[in-house]
Amino acid sequence: MAEKDFIVTPWEVVGDVDYTELVKRFGTQEIDEALLARIKKHAPLHYMLRRKIFFSHRDLDWVLGEYEKGNKFFLYTGRGPSDDTHLGHLVPWIFTKYLQDSFGSKLYFQMTDDEKFLFKEKLSREETHSLAYENALDVIALGFDSKKTMIFADTDVIDFLYPHALEVAKKVTFSTAKAVFGFTNETNIGGIFFTSIQSVPAFIESIKQKKPVPCLIPHAIDQDPHFRITRDVAPKIGFPKPSSIHCKFLPSLKGSGKMSSSGSPDSMIYTTDSPEEVERKIMSAFTGGRDTIEEQKRLGGRPEICPIFSYYTFLFETDDEKLKEIEQQCRSGKLMCGEDKARLCERVKKFLAEHQKNREAARKQLSKFMAKKI
Amino acid sequence: MAEKDFIVTPWEVVGDVDYTELVKRFGTQEIDEALLARIKKHAPLHYMLRRKIFFSHRDLDWVLGEYEKGNKFFLYTGRGPSDDTHLGHLVPWIFTKYLQDSFGSKLYFQMTDDEKFLFKEKLSREETHSLAYENALDVIALGFDSKKTMIFADTDVIDFLYPHALEVAKKVTFSTAKAVFGFTNETNIGGIFFTSIQSVPAFIESIKQKKPVPCLIPHAIDQDPHFRITRDVAPKIGFPKPSSIHCKFLPSLKGSGKMSSSGSPDSMIYTTDSPEEVERKIMSAFTGGRDTIEEQKRLGGRPEICPIFSYYTFLFETDDEKLKEIEQQCRSGKLMCGEDKARLCERVKKFLAEHQKNREAARKQLSKFMAKKI
Repeated sequence: MAEKDFIVTPWEVVGDVDYTELVKRFGTQEIDEALLARIKKHAPLHYMLRRKIFFSHRDLDWVLGEYEKGNKFFLYTGRGPSDDTHLGHLVPWIFTKYLQDSFGSKLYFQMTDDEKFLFKEKLSREETHSLAYENALDVIALGFDSKKTMIFADTDVIDFLYPHALEVAKKVTFSTAKAVFGFTNETNIGGIFFTSIQSVPAFIESIKQKKPVPCLIPHAIDQDPHFRITRDVAPKIGFPKPSSIHCKFLPSLKGSGKMSSSGSPDSMIYTTDSPEEVERKIMSAFTGGRDTIEEQKRLGGRPEICPIFSYYTFLFETDDEKLKEIEQQCRSGKLMCGEDKARLCERVKKFLAEHQKNREAARKQLSKFMAKKI
Repeated sequence: MAEKDFIVTPWEVVGDVDYTELVKRFGTQEIDEALLARIKKHAPLHYMLRRKIFFSHRDLDWVLGEYEKGNKFFLYTGRGPSDDTHLGHLVPWIFTKYLQDSFGSKLYFQMTDDEKFLFKEKLSREETHSLAYENALDVIALGFDSKKTMIFADTDVIDFLYPHALEVAKKVTFSTAKAVFGFTNETNIGGIFFTSIQSVPAFIESIKQKKPVPCLIPHAIDQDPHFRITRDVAPKIGFPKPSSIHCKFLPSLKGSGKMSSSGSPDSMIYTTDSPEEVERKIMSAFTGGRDTIEEQKRLGGRPEICPIFSYYTFLFETDDEKLKEIEQQCRSGKLMCGEDKARLCERVKKFLAEHQKNREAARKQLSKFMAKKI
């Protein structure tokens, strides 16, 4: 792999991702000004749209067109429960809540406990199933509407998913799965089949209502290969192609790549981290600062490569003016990294104190959200 | 394929099967006299054992050893519901009933409606599911003990099967599945995964009783590749390897190969055939007879290549002495094919009249046998 090259698959993100290049590789569309203006007709533009954190899509224009005709879409997103939730996971979930609130959409939230069991050598079924419920607490803590939101672990509702997954699987050859996911002869046969299960939630409302219902899938762009298959198969089995809208990855505190669970635990902040852990991780993070204070004062910092600045951008400074101020202070050399980190620390700790409270309160709401039957 | 060559896979049987050669290819064991003597200690030898219709096994001696120690085995067999039941299917089922009656075994009977949907281009899920119930009538009609027998369609009990199938799938690479089943890049990803589902019933009692329970699988030898995988994976996921006992195929009335549903409908007799259809199929069947009556009288018939004689052997003459008599009459040139066919016709019609009556009566018993929950 050349130094500037990168890999993005549903199971691996390596290198510094060039998102313009990725859009070309995956064949998605960038969200342009015209599309933003169209969204703005229905809802105030979320900062993640204004900042191009959600930057790419497939057929978002179509799903909006249907909405404008009175044909409401439902939302589908999910999580692979292989570990505790980290702040990077919250990015698409917060945006999904914005979509639910703005468009009044039903949401199906899939916890792929089966997938994580199949792809993580060391995890047992019991562990991934239990993590599904732990991760669900973070979803619920964000304030989703329980009347419009159903969360499920795949193995809990497999009676519904499996028959429809068979319909998908019948239309996907190993050859296709290999090309899309990079499978080899050593991939296990469950992993090969799994994408069929991830397709099904895109059809739930069409199945339930017995008519085509548009679906919009907000997700981090690494999951796009799955939905490429879903979109290819959908019309062959009588369903509309789901639309999708894609976000970038919250960068690693170590300065490169996705905040992936396979990376070092210090490269990311878990929603369950203590204030001390938050402090330690942030204070030891990589930044866009210079080697000496003198240099930093003279040349200014580099927010474009700084994970601390990304944390503000993705999550912790939602006011555009204030974000611009931070950026200018940094670039001008007025803001030192220590100070910048300390301020972020306070915001993250404050956020997590509140989130952890909501997360514990969510335990009582689990039964309202977690479906055993679709 | 050379003229004398043959292919046996779970989905295809082509050519005249050389069973001695097949045992070598598959790596199973022939059932020898010592093993027959051991079975005889517990039960009168079934004619299918005496005649080597059930001729091959894996670890049958082990499962008998466990039985002798008081560790009872349970039975597992099944059917791929792609069509109506034909007489060839009844062969292993009749033998399974003998095992249940003789050893007091529980039986799990799997209807692989998912498999048949995945492998039969033209069948819908609704069709294979409905065929599962139609085929179950034939099983019930044979007189299985409802207290000891559970029949299920995979999609009805997938909530139980799927989590355990994941355990199997995680241990099987595409490479292995390819080698065992001859899959190609064009095989669909559901077909690749399916063998995991066929493995699970071999573990049901071990799962339910939370301790290792021996399992014996009576089946036609074409299904052996599935159970080779099951046996390979079992100890890796904490279960005993199932034992198996294998039968030959009832030959086609057209004179070659397995009575496969993919062959012509005239090459086999369905359990739902009318007396007229039975007559037409048998009277137009291939035989081991000679070209002219004169020749037949002079040289005698050839029961060894005659499907009519096979029908007597497999199903319609259970008395060894009487079977020998038929064989001698045929070989000596005393018995003409027309007469032989007419007698078989009467027996098949009589059998089917009774079976069809039991089959209809079985509709009322479906709910006692068909499980929606394991």
